[in-house]
Amino acid sequence: MSGVFITFEGGEGAGKTTLIEKVMRWLVGEGREVLRTREPGGTPLGEEIRTLLLQPRETELSPYTELCLFLASRAQHIREIILPALKLGKIVLCDRFNDSSIAYQGVARGLGREKVQAVCAFASEGLTPHLTLYLDIDPETGLRRAKNSRAQDRIESEDIAFHTRIRDGYLAIAKADPKRFCLLDASQPPETVFHQAMHLLRRHV
Amino acid sequence: MSGVFITFEGGEGAGKTTLIEKVMRWLVGEGREVLRTREPGGTPLGEEIRTLLLQPRETELSPYTELCLFLASRAQHIREIILPALKLGKIVLCDRFNDSSIAYQGVARGLGREKVQAVCAFASEGLTPHLTLYLDIDPETGLRRAKNSRAQDRIESEDIAFHTRIRDGYLAIAKADPKRFCLLDASQPPETVFHQAMHLLRRHV
Repeated sequence: MSGVFITFEGGEGAGKTTLIEKVMRWLVGEGREVLRTREPGGTPLGEEIRTLLLQPRETELSPYTELCLFLASRAQHIREIILPALKLGKIVLCDRFNDSSIAYQGVARGLGREKVQAVCAFASEGLTPHLTLYLDIDPETGLRRAKNSRAQDRIESEDIAFHTRIRDGYLAIAKADPKRFCLLDASQPPETVFHQAMHLLRRHV
Repeated sequence: MSGVFITFEGGEGAGKTTLIEKVMRWLVGEGREVLRTREPGGTPLGEEIRTLLLQPRETELSPYTELCLFLASRAQHIREIILPALKLGKIVLCDRFNDSSIAYQGVARGLGREKVQAVCAFASEGLTPHLTLYLDIDPETGLRRAKNSRAQDRIESEDIAFHTRIRDGYLAIAKADPKRFCLLDASQPPETVFHQAMHLLRRHV
């Protein structure tokens, strides 16, 4: 694997999409080969799984079911999209990866941070990002931003307490793995966040 | 959990369906409350996942994807069907469970027996069968039987070598966990297999 694998993480409304677009434009402007992707990454199976995950249901999904569906979608995304791009030497910018499962299912849904981390490492064939940019934001601010920008899906309709647990999950990862998982204060203006991101990215790209 | 959880395992054409029917009739005839089930067990999500798994595809599923989809279906089956029945004190007869993942994905597809076992234990919330009846048969004989009884799906069209690895997987489980995982010689007449199964089941039901 000769490419660079960068992932972006954060709760609802943290500004991931805006940051990824800025990073993408910057790197392409520098003549780099970049693949921008997000789960399910355009794999047909991933899209079908995404539909299963996001539709409202009469019987709630078990958190284990939810986790395994995300892992299945991710495993296919890795095989079909991410690994081939990395083998070609591209910079891969991925919106959400294993840390989302650890924060959402491991911590917020209570399945256990380290257990979910171990399952993620197995199902993703040990693929680890070179750098993860985590956009940290107070959940109330983030949810207010997200509500203004688009319709709510099943996950976004959860309450503030749930989103606070997600943030706790991310902060625990930042503490456990500070070299890879870098926190950016997402309450700052987008341009400031982008410049801090560039500074971190220059070490890898 | 006050019920009894019995699972049935075996390669293609080993005679699981016939044996489960005989066991079901016997236990119901004795006035026991029995739930007969199989993955995906009639959960709406499980049926949708089954469709994803069995349809032929242009891009092959990663074995990790396959494993995670089976685990997702199983996790929902456990929550919606198996645990509620066990809580009511029923005898649950389940056609395939974690050992299938260990034999098929862990051994035959090469993901690793112990690693898959650990992931299965986590995703199934630690639920372990009281007894597993494994119908052991030579793959050539089993595949010949299966071909005569119904159309082939994606998994059945794999070659003999693959089915031999599945059998190796099951035999490794039998060696590692002989108290729970009991081998029955499925080349014997169905009535003989049933009587041996009854003998093993009497200790639990």
